[in-house]
Amino acid sequence: MKLLFITSNEHKVREIRDLALKMNANIEIEHIRVAYPEIQHEDIEFVAESSAKFIRKEGLVGEEEPFFIEDSGLFIHALNGFPGAFSSYVFKKIGNEGILKLLRGVEDRRALFKSVVAFSPRGFVVKTFVGVVEGRIASEKRGASGFGFDPIFEFGGRTFAEMSVAEKNAVSHRGRAFRKFLNFILSSASMREAD
Amino acid sequence: MKLLFITSNEHKVREIRDLALKMNANIEIEHIRVAYPEIQHEDIEFVAESSAKFIRKEGLVGEEEPFFIEDSGLFIHALNGFPGAFSSYVFKKIGNEGILKLLRGVEDRRALFKSVVAFSPRGFVVKTFVGVVEGRIASEKRGASGFGFDPIFEFGGRTFAEMSVAEKNAVSHRGRAFRKFLNFILSSASMREAD
Repeated sequence: MKLLFITSNEHKVREIRDLALKMNANIEIEHIRVAYPEIQHEDIEFVAESSAKFIRKEGLVGEEEPFFIEDSGLFIHALNGFPGAFSSYVFKKIGNEGILKLLRGVEDRRALFKSVVAFSPRGFVVKTFVGVVEGRIASEKRGASGFGFDPIFEFGGRTFAEMSVAEKNAVSHRGRAFRKFLNFILSSASMREAD
Repeated sequence: MKLLFITSNEHKVREIRDLALKMNANIEIEHIRVAYPEIQHEDIEFVAESSAKFIRKEGLVGEEEPFFIEDSGLFIHALNGFPGAFSSYVFKKIGNEGILKLLRGVEDRRALFKSVVAFSPRGFVVKTFVGVVEGRIASEKRGASGFGFDPIFEFGGRTFAEMSVAEKNAVSHRGRAFRKFLNFILSSASMREAD
């Protein structure tokens, strides 16, 4: 089975391919880049769903082609959920250094990463899969793997940037959302086979 | 002549009414609140124009009713233009304190406020008016007037929050955009009269 993954982020493609391989899922992930606008909204589930519908509406992929997108955000407790739905913009502008500076002297380091996969099997049908991981913001950057806020997001004593793709997938928000999504695809496929 | 101003911000309504009065413009500004989604885009002119078209498309105002919206953003030089198009979200989350913290120890305090009025006289016609003011980020909050980032945005030695509505209008991004817009309305009206 072939699924289109619409994203501009190669790291995310690597993460889901690694997972699909580990799950022995006979799923081919085809990476395509399609520019589409995102709505300004704090609820990333709503953003992802709107984007998927927009992609269909504008005919950016074939009507019968199953595709998915993934949106994620870092929600920092002491910053009222900032940068949240605007994480990639904020990362581009102020980076990990900006976040560390905002949290300088702040004791409460709790943070949450959330990922939403919006999958459209065909037409305007959209199903979402959510993954969440609770961690903390480190006091400095550590590690060189991953991307974005990975070097400052700590889980179980290590930052995401100190983990391999497989290690990060096992615990990360995106790994959790991707697993739910791939399990759904596999069970739908086996149901079809049983028909 | 009556113009609908679609906004959830009463300060902005006060600002343009004050200006219209000073300009002896026989224009009535009716304030209405209509919820509409904003697109995620760094160019606020594009955002404002898209929003105006969306409002028409969804029939949120009558087809023949002239209306306008206003979008603005604070662009800080040392922060690569952050918070920019996402200023109101960033303000809500980290406030003036957050911006001051991000700029702690930073010498380059240059900042720019930009305002865009998107005016739709009827149908899908949209015309935009842009106003810009260059200033600097103060080292601490000063003043109690205005709203948003006004207490930290310095122009000519005073912050916008240390100015009256009229004083701020005379130099602010929004005052400049509003004046261009009102002058356009007035000249269109006098052209119609001359017909």
